[in-house]
Amino acid sequence: MKLHGYFRSSAAWRVRIALNLKGLGAEHAFRHLRKGEQRAPDYLCLNPQGLLPSLETDDGQVLTQSMAIVEWLDETHPEPALLPGDALQRARIRAFAQAIACDIHPVQNLKVLARLRAMGQPEEVVTGWARDTIQEGLEACEELLAGGEGPFCFGPTPTLADICLIPQLGNAKRFGADSAALARISEAARACAAHPAFIAAAPENQADAE
Amino acid sequence: MKLHGYFRSSAAWRVRIALNLKGLGAEHAFRHLRKGEQRAPDYLCLNPQGLLPSLETDDGQVLTQSMAIVEWLDETHPEPALLPGDALQRARIRAFAQAIACDIHPVQNLKVLARLRAMGQPEEVVTGWARDTIQEGLEACEELLAGGEGPFCFGPTPTLADICLIPQLGNAKRFGADSAALARISEAARACAAHPAFIAAAPENQADAE
Repeated sequence: MKLHGYFRSSAAWRVRIALNLKGLGAEHAFRHLRKGEQRAPDYLCLNPQGLLPSLETDDGQVLTQSMAIVEWLDETHPEPALLPGDALQRARIRAFAQAIACDIHPVQNLKVLARLRAMGQPEEVVTGWARDTIQEGLEACEELLAGGEGPFCFGPTPTLADICLIPQLGNAKRFGADSAALARISEAARACAAHPAFIAAAPENQADAE
Repeated sequence: MKLHGYFRSSAAWRVRIALNLKGLGAEHAFRHLRKGEQRAPDYLCLNPQGLLPSLETDDGQVLTQSMAIVEWLDETHPEPALLPGDALQRARIRAFAQAIACDIHPVQNLKVLARLRAMGQPEEVVTGWARDTIQEGLEACEELLAGGEGPFCFGPTPTLADICLIPQLGNAKRFGADSAALARISEAARACAAHPAFIAAAPENQADAE
């Protein structure tokens, strides 16, 4: 498999964690987001949205959208399960993941912030937009975990929820959102920080890290 | 089951379509988004994100996030399948759905537009933000369908992709994005417009429609 990503892309980061949790190796191709390499014609042939990541499978198919890729990995390589449990538990894991992937990350991503800058918004307003989006979003996420068992978001093993949480916490740090008071999220973050799959997937450990 | 929604909420609309496709009845509770009823304390107990929809199941569980709810409906009521086919086909359906649910809708939803207005952006800039987001996003979505068979997004039956597409086309119309030139999307839209499950789920056919 070949993953087209960028060290700092939250969505590519999710897929790196999933590949590592499954013990799957992949070739890594890098597309520099800040240089716009995801809009190059040769990449748009793979991914018409011009977004990262894309995963080329061993039989030449191209998969897009990080969450769809992680679900595909989980269906084609079931162990360890990234969506364990019964339908209700899976719904809770997916809901947490989507609270990040649909409600936080898209509103604070590079593209949206660039549009705000292009409107003439000063840098502190742009950063504040990202920070407030993340802060409010993570506080709601903490409540989605209330009463559950750790150390990971949904119990003893990492799931799609942790896969989404950790890159989002990376963005929280960049933009000054503070998750220290969020007990369940902090517990999951500590568990992931000690897990080899998460360590190997971290931006600073990628070949294109700056 | 009891669905907490709002006639014009894209995310609630998705769940209404899915319930109808599965032939499942549900009680409908309405939360007026423009009046902020989704932030009322009694609703935040159900859904700490303060977002629509929420689905109360028959055994008293509360499910949130429209895509997670649709996946849950599909797991607990497998026929007709909303994610038919093999893992690859399912990945393509999910990627299309997420291209809408993660990349278009969150950037043009009511909350983001309200923030732009609160920044002092004039109405034409706010509307333009929504329109351009939808236009660009739907054009990429069309390419995700290229070469596939209709009449629905992914073949002869409606899937999660159509469930996301139709509410997004509702927003396209509201904000002046034009999808007429997008052949596969237009074909799917026509097929859905003639399907009873989609007709019954349309905003204008809800009890709280204005």
